[in-house]
Amino acid sequence: MAFEDMWAALLPVGRDREHGGYDRFAWTPPELECRDWFLDEARGRGFTVERDANGNLFAWWLPDNGVREDAVVTGSHLDSVPGGGAFDGPLGVVSAFAAVDLLRERGVRPGRPIGIAAFAEEEGARFGVACLGSRLLAGAIDPARARGLTDRDGVSVADALAGDGLDPGRIGPDEDLLGRIGCYVELHVEQGRALTVPVGAASSIVPHGRWRFDFAGEGNHAGTTLLADRRDPMLAFARMVLAARDAAERNGTVATVGKVHVTPGGVNAIPSSVAAWLDSRGPVDDAVRRTVEEVHRAAREDGVEVSVAEESYTEVVDFDTALRDRMVEALGGVPVLPTGAGHDAGILASRVPTAMLFVRNPTGVSHAPSEYAEPDDCLAGVEALATVLKDLARG
Amino acid sequence: MAFEDMWAALLPVGRDREHGGYDRFAWTPPELECRDWFLDEARGRGFTVERDANGNLFAWWLPDNGVREDAVVTGSHLDSVPGGGAFDGPLGVVSAFAAVDLLRERGVRPGRPIGIAAFAEEEGARFGVACLGSRLLAGAIDPARARGLTDRDGVSVADALAGDGLDPGRIGPDEDLLGRIGCYVELHVEQGRALTVPVGAASSIVPHGRWRFDFAGEGNHAGTTLLADRRDPMLAFARMVLAARDAAERNGTVATVGKVHVTPGGVNAIPSSVAAWLDSRGPVDDAVRRTVEEVHRAAREDGVEVSVAEESYTEVVDFDTALRDRMVEALGGVPVLPTGAGHDAGILASRVPTAMLFVRNPTGVSHAPSEYAEPDDCLAGVEALATVLKDLARG
Repeated sequence: MAFEDMWAALLPVGRDREHGGYDRFAWTPPELECRDWFLDEARGRGFTVERDANGNLFAWWLPDNGVREDAVVTGSHLDSVPGGGAFDGPLGVVSAFAAVDLLRERGVRPGRPIGIAAFAEEEGARFGVACLGSRLLAGAIDPARARGLTDRDGVSVADALAGDGLDPGRIGPDEDLLGRIGCYVELHVEQGRALTVPVGAASSIVPHGRWRFDFAGEGNHAGTTLLADRRDPMLAFARMVLAARDAAERNGTVATVGKVHVTPGGVNAIPSSVAAWLDSRGPVDDAVRRTVEEVHRAAREDGVEVSVAEESYTEVVDFDTALRDRMVEALGGVPVLPTGAGHDAGILASRVPTAMLFVRNPTGVSHAPSEYAEPDDCLAGVEALATVLKDLARG
Repeated sequence: MAFEDMWAALLPVGRDREHGGYDRFAWTPPELECRDWFLDEARGRGFTVERDANGNLFAWWLPDNGVREDAVVTGSHLDSVPGGGAFDGPLGVVSAFAAVDLLRERGVRPGRPIGIAAFAEEEGARFGVACLGSRLLAGAIDPARARGLTDRDGVSVADALAGDGLDPGRIGPDEDLLGRIGCYVELHVEQGRALTVPVGAASSIVPHGRWRFDFAGEGNHAGTTLLADRRDPMLAFARMVLAARDAAERNGTVATVGKVHVTPGGVNAIPSSVAAWLDSRGPVDDAVRRTVEEVHRAAREDGVEVSVAEESYTEVVDFDTALRDRMVEALGGVPVLPTGAGHDAGILASRVPTAMLFVRNPTGVSHAPSEYAEPDDCLAGVEALATVLKDLARG
């Protein structure tokens, strides 16, 4: 199946007809439909399918020489943020299948296994921890903590895994699988406007993390409670939002508050509590840490208790220089740039040589319905990935 | 059935087992269960049941003299705010049945009909407009506008009414029903700490209203979008929250932001839009209007469009002085106090002589799970209501 046909098959899945954005949350029906699509594509090509204990999917094109180790793995993820774009994740998976198709059409016989991966819950949109599937695989999160993460309806990761036929007791690092991966190359749509040619390569992922702020006040009547008697957590939350922007400007970072839950959420009730999430990223650890501390200090209101919990944090990730140089050389020279976006590649980089290819994003919009890449740029990405896979899989 | 037994029967309906608060939204299963309870109580006493075209319920204890007009109506509502308390609304309905029981036990034969009412969607928690049922009955809202109001799932009032077997085309003022109501007396738990004896009477409801603020920015990636490129509606929203407190202090009003919807609501996405609701009340119209204008002026952010829509506004309501004086005299003198809370009584006051009885609230907490009134105070409220009904229904 050509790139365009695979792309068209995924386009309607989990799409909001009104806003055009995607809600493909891990282990919900739209994401499971994407997984079924993945399995069909893999089996249709005669590839061996492997689902690891953490819910990550792999499709293996195995070489004729019987080698099962030192695999060249590519891929990305199929889940989305709420109201996300079509490209973030699926572009890497569809491009992987399309690149392998090019190699087969051209009669390439790999000397090493080529794997296509789709990692689970990359966005953390359902359970709060980004790159959950790759973190579990790589041993970058405690399995007991992962099992207990819950979505907003109180459904746990353990429940979601069990619902998909997986044993929640078996999640965690998989040394056998990791040991078979020789390198990982993820293709992804670029998420800023830093790339001005169709294809580039990543140098690093900047430090980034998520923090949950809990504000506890006292719920009460909006009309009869005197201002002086109020313990209104919404006020502390508002200070947090404004402090995040100020602290980011001061520290040369970015800081975003994109998600908030208000309890009880009535028009005529002072909230009893507010939970809000801070996303912050910056060039160095210290700058990000200072940003979060300054936001914490500013998020205050009399009578309101404030607590902060780090939900995830990833230090700077420098991708494998040798792998990147080999890739850039195989492509005849492409720009190399850092990114402010997290990726499964950033997690796997701690365990296997890892690199990334970016496809140009003309507007820089991402995590929104208007996220876009030109068709010609996508096809250039497929060509580049095919070139890289062919080069690496020579063995 | 005694007050305590009726109270116990309603207590579990729509109660959140974790937080203890009530979610009884108009025409949802818990509220419909409360309505069924109402109908059972009415029929069990041999009362005539009437459901008007707007979904309001009436139970009629008709006099032996064949008179059907000039009724003395009491009651309240059965719906709740999100996570609301047990007393706001149901106390007035349960007390009405209990007061009528006292009169019957004491052999009172009314000379005028006594009606017990349960008005629909008093809180506006589902469709946004408070006192929707009484507004429709009294002609205080355009029926076409009411039909088109939607809840957060996009279900309209017309859909909800049709689902309950009502014809949405027939909603609106009911002059026949209004013409049969001689006066309305609503018993309600007090919602501040102004009442220091078990029972009091209302003088007035202060001006109050609800405004919806819409902030439209541009959704984008939380990591890759430069601060300078952002059009983040959350920042304008945060300024609105803080401005509401400042404006209330300046103008001697109260102002509350208790409800907010963020789209798309992802941790790692700058929101594309935020909708938030302002509740403001104050001693005079001008002060409330100024509060809203000042909040509107302060709720700004570069690149974010802000719009404000008034969802409801109720000018000061002065309850009927003659009715109140007669009531206070029948009770041998009780305190008379204004309230910052809206009620169906405030709507009906424009069409029929109306009064209110309050039962003491020891903590002043309302619209929250810990809302409370002492059992002895509740029974004192029932006695007071029985005294008032007996006096008024002499004819």
